[in-house]
Amino acid sequence: MKTLIRGATVVTANEQDTIIPDADVVVDNNIISYVGPKKEWVEDFAKVINGRGKLVAPGFVNAHGHAAMSLLRSLADDVPLMYWLEKRIWPVEAKLKREDVYWGTMLAILEMIKGGTTTFTDMYFFMDQVAEATEETGIRAVLARGLVGIGHMSEQGLEESQQFVENWQGGADGRISTMLGPHAPYTCPPDYLKRVLALQEKLDVPVQIHLCETRDEVDRIQKEHGVTPVELVRDTGLFQAPVIAAHCVHLTVDDIDILREFDVRVAHNPGSNLKLGSGISPVPDLLKRGITVGLGTDGAASNNNLDMMEEMRLAALLHKGSRMDPTAITARQALAMGTRESAQALFLEDVGTIEAGMKADLIMMDLQKPHLTPQHDLVAHLVYAAQPSDITLVMVNGRILMEDGNLTTMDEEKILFQAQQRALHLVEEKEDD
Amino acid sequence: MKTLIRGATVVTANEQDTIIPDADVVVDNNIISYVGPKKEWVEDFAKVINGRGKLVAPGFVNAHGHAAMSLLRSLADDVPLMYWLEKRIWPVEAKLKREDVYWGTMLAILEMIKGGTTTFTDMYFFMDQVAEATEETGIRAVLARGLVGIGHMSEQGLEESQQFVENWQGGADGRISTMLGPHAPYTCPPDYLKRVLALQEKLDVPVQIHLCETRDEVDRIQKEHGVTPVELVRDTGLFQAPVIAAHCVHLTVDDIDILREFDVRVAHNPGSNLKLGSGISPVPDLLKRGITVGLGTDGAASNNNLDMMEEMRLAALLHKGSRMDPTAITARQALAMGTRESAQALFLEDVGTIEAGMKADLIMMDLQKPHLTPQHDLVAHLVYAAQPSDITLVMVNGRILMEDGNLTTMDEEKILFQAQQRALHLVEEKEDD
Ligand SMILES: [Zn+2]
Ligand SMILES: [Zn+2]
Repeated sequence: MKTLIRGATVVTANEQDTIIPDADVVVDNNIISYVGPKKEWVEDFAKVINGRGKLVAPGFVNAHGHAAMSLLRSLADDVPLMYWLEKRIWPVEAKLKREDVYWGTMLAILEMIKGGTTTFTDMYFFMDQVAEATEETGIRAVLARGLVGIGHMSEQGLEESQQFVENWQGGADGRISTMLGPHAPYTCPPDYLKRVLALQEKLDVPVQIHLCETRDEVDRIQKEHGVTPVELVRDTGLFQAPVIAAHCVHLTVDDIDILREFDVRVAHNPGSNLKLGSGISPVPDLLKRGITVGLGTDGAASNNNLDMMEEMRLAALLHKGSRMDPTAITARQALAMGTRESAQALFLEDVGTIEAGMKADLIMMDLQKPHLTPQHDLVAHLVYAAQPSDITLVMVNGRILMEDGNLTTMDEEKILFQAQQRALHLVEEKEDD
Repeated sequence: MKTLIRGATVVTANEQDTIIPDADVVVDNNIISYVGPKKEWVEDFAKVINGRGKLVAPGFVNAHGHAAMSLLRSLADDVPLMYWLEKRIWPVEAKLKREDVYWGTMLAILEMIKGGTTTFTDMYFFMDQVAEATEETGIRAVLARGLVGIGHMSEQGLEESQQFVENWQGGADGRISTMLGPHAPYTCPPDYLKRVLALQEKLDVPVQIHLCETRDEVDRIQKEHGVTPVELVRDTGLFQAPVIAAHCVHLTVDDIDILREFDVRVAHNPGSNLKLGSGISPVPDLLKRGITVGLGTDGAASNNNLDMMEEMRLAALLHKGSRMDPTAITARQALAMGTRESAQALFLEDVGTIEAGMKADLIMMDLQKPHLTPQHDLVAHLVYAAQPSDITLVMVNGRILMEDGNLTTMDEEKILFQAQQRALHLVEEKEDD
């Protein structure tokens, strides 16, 4: 089955930053088979989409998050981090049931699809439910069962991780890939990280971990172990595996060298880092050192949305302002971070650009909007001016998941109802206790 | 003529942060005459609007900008400030004709109305065209002819300012108020600022000025005059007038004391300050000292949109992150800054909250959205999660300007066409020269 998108302006977001006006894009099953100037096609297409006045770009890749935390959106804001975690988030998370995680994930996927995100990653629990939501909705996902190496769940976590990888790696027509998800060096002691590495060597999937998110984390590790969190993880051998590290806010120069040496990929979460008061990651320095940096929203409890356009904008604006350098991160760099660099950060080689041979994960945007007029520079528009509601079409793996506001795989009303009911119930339960 | 909005949740954004669920709002001509619990009304309303599942909040007040610069949106991004101004912006601005300013302003007003902004301020040239666009579209505006005190236009600027104030103060059914607009201390020498003050005393309107936007400005003034820009302006006597100062990024402790002493109002422009690499204004310190701080977008050439939701979000996020303090600016403070504090910064006493007796400038938002579900905290939603497209109704001075996406006073297609044509023409002309 072949689909033709006719006459759109294509922002390829490839290494050359190619922009092709009045272009044709052909999707052959789940693969982009042609991107280039408009042609006279003789073959029949199953579907022809009019791209006039529209922009086609890669779908966004959300390189860090916890989807089901959407149920905790706006539950607790503007409070200190430890109070937020210990008094507000963890007590409610402790009550989450299997079905809550399913509906919270459905809510997150609904928001992400409407906002043009075609791949997300998740580190949480009840991951079978997350995989099922991924399978049903048609989105692409990189999934890891979160692992905590202290307490009674540490053994079970490793076993469940193995089962999860064995059950779901390559699942949902190849849309699901899996990882191991040790939570962080302060919740996973060195010996436990070594066991994660042993499992990784057996299963051959990448690893995701939170790293150097807060000043407090760095101080604690330094006090307990006499090294930085990056050094601590390096010393366990874990960086011999493919690793994506979320946050990386507080890094020494040596830490940056280590990340570079082991090709550790980074997920930058500007919205979450700002909102929780964690600080500002030295992203321009990471990019200068050639480190792969993607973008993530983190969970909706600390963001409070899952809007990748906003993360691209924050990444482009924040480092300019804090360094007083208007060239610190360009719109082109921010777009790359939200698409192909995020894909590479998640070790996905075939999504993140609009090029022949890539998986057909793409968005189409309406340019006939006041905030996108005039059109001197479309990449600047995508990063600095666009809104999720400008998106008219979302395709993942060659399948249209949204077209002109209509969702093809999700029942929006039902998801909103379920999510609202379950969220209220969780909060009431908490207050009853 | 009376309108009833029935059964909405009202975020009053008043000093008490009152939120009224299932409320009625009555608009009597251009005034809010009732806000409170749902009632059995016996009188007839000319219009009844169903507010179920909706949120009503004050319209946003954009406390700093240059509307017609929307024509230069995305013309030049990610370049150093002086190059941006001297090589990209000024050469194109020099070619702007009367009609360009009219259509550029129409484009800006179109974007602002769709994004829930009910009052904007402007400092530019061809201000009669800006006032006409304001009159036609139904938005509220505080307008100042921009004044530069060096060069051949300095005298004419003062004369035109007087004419503009005399012609337009209180115009468009009271929707237009006027100011004097000396551009900045580095473009208006002290003697010129004294002449502005003399004119201000005669006309009795407030003054708006750019102040301490960049490190470079502060260094130049310090070198030339041996004082800070704030001290320089204070010494001219100008702060005896009601003054709103835009930016205030680089301030000494003494500067902050001076702003407080003279009750100078501040327009914080986080998006523009970040994008141009100007730096981060010490807003939490200003608020602690009791200084009135509103929010502005600045022009679309340096933002690149006119989205006040984004400015509220940036104000709430930026200072948390840069100070590593998640309580630095709360969602409630950010909402106040985008509404009633901005109004007060513009010396408007009767807009910016949903309370009986205030002008009927309000927005209604649809809450049935994935990114606004669940609804633990609606103010957090407004600041951290909402999108302009959530807005379903915009009312200014009691008149509906947008309802369910339909504009009542503006021809969107015509404005987008005119703006795009004129912008392309300006750029082509520039390239021809
Ligand atoms: Zn996380
Ligand atoms: Zn300005």
